[in-house]
Amino acid sequence: MKVGKFLQRVRQQLVTCRPDDSIGAVAKVLHANNIGAMPVCEFDRRIVGIISERDIVRALATKACDLKDMKVRDLMTAKVVSCGPDENMQSAQEVMNRNRFRHLPVVEGGHVLGILSIRDTLASRLQESELEINVLRDVVVAARHR
Amino acid sequence: MKVGKFLQRVRQQLVTCRPDDSIGAVAKVLHANNIGAMPVCEFDRRIVGIISERDIVRALATKACDLKDMKVRDLMTAKVVSCGPDENMQSAQEVMNRNRFRHLPVVEGGHVLGILSIRDTLASRLQESELEINVLRDVVVAARHR
Repeated sequence: MKVGKFLQRVRQQLVTCRPDDSIGAVAKVLHANNIGAMPVCEFDRRIVGIISERDIVRALATKACDLKDMKVRDLMTAKVVSCGPDENMQSAQEVMNRNRFRHLPVVEGGHVLGILSIRDTLASRLQESELEINVLRDVVVAARHR
Repeated sequence: MKVGKFLQRVRQQLVTCRPDDSIGAVAKVLHANNIGAMPVCEFDRRIVGIISERDIVRALATKACDLKDMKVRDLMTAKVVSCGPDENMQSAQEVMNRNRFRHLPVVEGGHVLGILSIRDTLASRLQESELEINVLRDVVVAARHR
């Protein structure tokens, strides 16, 4: 399945934040939406980074100052790896595996359209595989009864 | 695949913490091991809870005090849902889906043996499905050439 089609199918409500938002505010948004990461955008959904639960826990592990007063730009990953809406879910998953990411923004012309999780891509591919298994089993049964 | 066999296959190095550990210390352990959650154990790997990145971010979102000084027992989920080593990966995944968990401890006789993530169970099932597809395709090709 194409990434763009997947985003349409799940009707993802994209949640983003700004680089100058505080980490305290971002923690509230992640918590309220029960999500693990979100794209960091400037005006007009132009993506400038990604911030995740893992970035926040890493900062708690490694930084001495109070997290709540830090800014998203201090902790975000600014060098964003992304995929396009015309890529398929398998290639998006391979990008995540290769880079050891759990989330991958979907970007077109510098603007973010959505975000995939490794769970999304695995679950979508598993569903497709199971459909294919059912079709192949039917073919095998039909061949045996010819 | 059985959960116990999966744990053996991936040679999981189980990381646990104690209920009296500080959240600052736990953040360091999660970060150092690049993991999202771990079982909380008393003596002899007797499980009393589970603590995750999400619990820490939720606390940052909802509590006013300094996280680093809080204890694991203040933030952990104490009512642990778990699976046994003889269950299969599909039923473990169904438990996680039903409860909206991303991690599931594997417990036998009250002692923790390992921890599964939803990513583990999906990836394992996808691998099995893809193997089955290859077998079925071979059967279909053979049937056509009889």
